[in-house]
Amino acid sequence: MSKKPIAVVLVSGGMDSAVVLAHVVSEGYDAHAISFDYGQRHRIELELAKVVASKGKAVLHRVIKLDNSAFQGSALTDDISVPKDRPLNIEEIPVTYVPARNLVFLSIASAYAESIEAADIFIGINAVDYSGYPDCRPEFIEAFERAVNLGTRTGIEQDRPSIRVHCPLVDLSKAQIVKRGIELGVDFGATLSCYAPEPAANGCTPCGHCDACRLRAAGFAEAGVEDFGLAVLGA
Amino acid sequence: MSKKPIAVVLVSGGMDSAVVLAHVVSEGYDAHAISFDYGQRHRIELELAKVVASKGKAVLHRVIKLDNSAFQGSALTDDISVPKDRPLNIEEIPVTYVPARNLVFLSIASAYAESIEAADIFIGINAVDYSGYPDCRPEFIEAFERAVNLGTRTGIEQDRPSIRVHCPLVDLSKAQIVKRGIELGVDFGATLSCYAPEPAANGCTPCGHCDACRLRAAGFAEAGVEDFGLAVLGA
Repeated sequence: MSKKPIAVVLVSGGMDSAVVLAHVVSEGYDAHAISFDYGQRHRIELELAKVVASKGKAVLHRVIKLDNSAFQGSALTDDISVPKDRPLNIEEIPVTYVPARNLVFLSIASAYAESIEAADIFIGINAVDYSGYPDCRPEFIEAFERAVNLGTRTGIEQDRPSIRVHCPLVDLSKAQIVKRGIELGVDFGATLSCYAPEPAANGCTPCGHCDACRLRAAGFAEAGVEDFGLAVLGA
Repeated sequence: MSKKPIAVVLVSGGMDSAVVLAHVVSEGYDAHAISFDYGQRHRIELELAKVVASKGKAVLHRVIKLDNSAFQGSALTDDISVPKDRPLNIEEIPVTYVPARNLVFLSIASAYAESIEAADIFIGINAVDYSGYPDCRPEFIEAFERAVNLGTRTGIEQDRPSIRVHCPLVDLSKAQIVKRGIELGVDFGATLSCYAPEPAANGCTPCGHCDACRLRAAGFAEAGVEDFGLAVLGA
């Protein structure tokens, strides 16, 4: 039986969380990958998350279904257009922001971690997302960590290990994330970073114009790594 | 059309949240009552929550379904006996604790509040619950409030009103909550405080022996108010 510590890893099907998962496994954890079905329009990412979890050697992958009535008003959940080719250097919250998404994801990950007596949660937030997404900023993660440790068993049972939210990509640029993924053997061909992908024969094709596609393309270009631009389910 | 501010109120079907709802309506809010289906074994509380929301004049009631795979190891979700007639003055976490429950509930309430541009969330935590439930303590609520305001739009758009988590019962004893409910016209006959109720013809009968039943009975006795001991759906 495995004696490794368990880590709970948030896996979206995107490139960042694929790198986080590889990092976690390389650090010697048994990784429990969890993904959320929150009514996202680009639902194929859940299929890709399954592939990412399997290729990344997670010991299990769980898709947690959320009632989407709590997540309204986002281009990722509602009939609102995903912006194409917008300037990326403006500091405003994009319409692809989903209300309190990481707060909800981390809360449920914490409940799950507490259920299985794990203390380590990993999430792929990174510097690229800071300006627009409030729930990708380190100060939010710090405040969340404080709240979760007051609001769970560790708040009363002081001898229990605190829940820690690890953000191993937090200081990395997209290019650095690509390079780190290559070092760790991540198959980026099975990841999807697009908010509005088109179905294709064996997966889907990224749109190439949403923020996520363009940040990914710039990262690969800067890293000098070829991105094949097709998220392939059976790859 | 209503010009009242909207409050999001967590309504469980129990006596505390019924009093909170009455308080919120008396303060001039349009109350959006939300309840959570998290796989609780005493599922009839969701039916009672509907009655409580209706009698309490919530403008809407929403039951949000949660994937119960994240909430394991509790007597409220798993096949673990609910303790009967245990000493109530011991400071330990009871087996009825559900991992990170209020953290998850408040996170989803925050997502919902942000979705509808509401800023006020009400929850019925109170002093009676402090000792055993980490997620009922004021220090957790304060830490949560800080996290939610960093992790949602208010974290970046500083002109947006902060999300506030109000705990109007936080300093009240069970007897004081009963009295406050009576003042506000709460029909306690439609509320259920039991963790292990028995089905009855038109609702259910509390067990009388779990912590929640005994704290409720002591509160009513101290307040000098009769509790009819039957949660009636159609009352």
